[in-house]
Amino acid sequence: MKNRKIDELIENIQPINQDIEIEALKRFDNLTKPRKSLGRLENIIARAAGVYGSVNPNLRRKVIFLMAADHGVTAERVSAYPAEITRQMVLNFLDGGAAINILTRHFGIDVVVTDIGVRGKLGEKKGLIRKKIAQGTENMATGPAMTREMAEESLLIGYEVFEKAFAQEKIDLIGLGEMGIGNTTASSAIISILTGAKIEDVVDMGTGLKPEQIEHKASIIKKAIEINQPNSKDSMDVLAKVGGFEIGGLVGCILAAASRRVPIVMDGLISGACALLAINLAPLVQDYLFASHCSKEKGHRVALSYLNEQPIFDLGMHLGEGTGAAYGISFIETGFKLLNQMATFDDLK
Amino acid sequence: MKNRKIDELIENIQPINQDIEIEALKRFDNLTKPRKSLGRLENIIARAAGVYGSVNPNLRRKVIFLMAADHGVTAERVSAYPAEITRQMVLNFLDGGAAINILTRHFGIDVVVTDIGVRGKLGEKKGLIRKKIAQGTENMATGPAMTREMAEESLLIGYEVFEKAFAQEKIDLIGLGEMGIGNTTASSAIISILTGAKIEDVVDMGTGLKPEQIEHKASIIKKAIEINQPNSKDSMDVLAKVGGFEIGGLVGCILAAASRRVPIVMDGLISGACALLAINLAPLVQDYLFASHCSKEKGHRVALSYLNEQPIFDLGMHLGEGTGAAYGISFIETGFKLLNQMATFDDLK
Repeated sequence: MKNRKIDELIENIQPINQDIEIEALKRFDNLTKPRKSLGRLENIIARAAGVYGSVNPNLRRKVIFLMAADHGVTAERVSAYPAEITRQMVLNFLDGGAAINILTRHFGIDVVVTDIGVRGKLGEKKGLIRKKIAQGTENMATGPAMTREMAEESLLIGYEVFEKAFAQEKIDLIGLGEMGIGNTTASSAIISILTGAKIEDVVDMGTGLKPEQIEHKASIIKKAIEINQPNSKDSMDVLAKVGGFEIGGLVGCILAAASRRVPIVMDGLISGACALLAINLAPLVQDYLFASHCSKEKGHRVALSYLNEQPIFDLGMHLGEGTGAAYGISFIETGFKLLNQMATFDDLK
Repeated sequence: MKNRKIDELIENIQPINQDIEIEALKRFDNLTKPRKSLGRLENIIARAAGVYGSVNPNLRRKVIFLMAADHGVTAERVSAYPAEITRQMVLNFLDGGAAINILTRHFGIDVVVTDIGVRGKLGEKKGLIRKKIAQGTENMATGPAMTREMAEESLLIGYEVFEKAFAQEKIDLIGLGEMGIGNTTASSAIISILTGAKIEDVVDMGTGLKPEQIEHKASIIKKAIEINQPNSKDSMDVLAKVGGFEIGGLVGCILAAASRRVPIVMDGLISGACALLAINLAPLVQDYLFASHCSKEKGHRVALSYLNEQPIFDLGMHLGEGTGAAYGISFIETGFKLLNQMATFDDLK
């Protein structure tokens, strides 16, 4: 029954409107600037126009969906920070003291924080959506991170969280954010499985590992893949065996946003893994996904390249939470203003 | 006498405060994020803090200085657009219909537009600073673009425009913007002379030249350098022989801003040439200069590399006007908010 809901959601996703995409590119050509001089921003905005089916969409409400969960694989010492940080950071998000709070306040973006599997109690905090599937995933180095049912549940939670926020007030643009100590390990595993890249080429420092610790992290991922034998053709199998609840939740947000014709701005490594899982389930989603930055995590570049996306900016950031996506949203918002508010050479006459 | 004024201005420029730079880096390390996870943004903000002498400066007023002038070298057909566009675009800036107007309105940045040598009449337009040195420069392919006195005058005009705006209301951050059909030709010449790069490696399409036209443009620059024999050790000689009034004006803005301890955000190729001229005159200025984007003009990367600066973003933009700088200002503003508004791990306890 759950599967049917996911299938319905996927069937609702339509191709973007290429006529509108072309109309936007033509409009850029008429503006008072050298032709194509906004570079790739013109292509980004044109494609987003294709998503909306309009060259002049209303971009009133921007939302970053921030999903948090813990990872059993932290038992293998794959992170420089203790798992307890996940819970502390969720409280920080709710108190407004985290990087993502500062950026979203500045840019006028809403943040929707969901506990989809954080270990420990968070209580009835204002602003927190409580959808805890479990106290973190199981250790993927010794067995599947979660059951297939839980993987499906995580997707549906992401879908429901998006739909509820959308029902409260129409959403025009979203960004993906996450928190979960251990989730670069899960994401690197997913990226390796779905792109065929070598594990060494997609594993990096996460929150701050030393070189020998990165080797250890790679060996744990290899072990997890050997033990679990995830089927790369089956996103739900990959998610269940080496994924995470927040990863599944964001895949659900992606599918929900695409079915509502809302562009999705990716963040770093983890949202790259989510995007790969989503296009595996629903190939049409690819045109709805927009890169923001390229993180310092080398697996992120592998994921972006597989998605055929070039980043807008590259500061070597690797903070997560949706921080890169917040800047990406600002570029898209200003890009539409340029398209719709600039004079044409005809206006000058 | 003019020279003495420029010398005084240069003597006023002090080294940035490295203790404050280090204090800012330490502060970043205490925030609720993985260490160094804001990547190069942490170094950018720390250096800017060193410019201010404060980790928590007030960034109330941001200004883009937009200087416009024409270039005699357009007689050699080095641009895809007619020279008349310079005047039309200045009117567009004053009417608020150009790309830079849209971006600065969005980001809350003031624009100060100066006619420092536009060909043709602009009249008494509201918001226009009228400092026309001449009706454009002379054709550098047949002789010097301007006299040395005019070069000095252009610098002093830039200085005075900055000082007047600063006196009206304190300025906290500036960006460099320009308009001048033909000015990528002048800038490529300057970059080649000051970095020693081959002309072929710094000449590009400008507003939209075809490959054979780019070759022609390179040959004109070679001719200009052969005829004028600019002295690469003498910025004022280079500016006079192959520069432009708006280029000199922006060099004046750079020196003035640095002497007031105001960080300067560069834009594309032209501001790269300005930065090279400025550090040649006053090496301490280098720490006051901040890259925003890397433009599609290949000479820009050469200039940034010589300045030891990495761009924040790269969209293949080549629009000018300060459009890249506007985004760069937004990154610096948000970077300081992150530094000063984020919680520390101690706060979470």
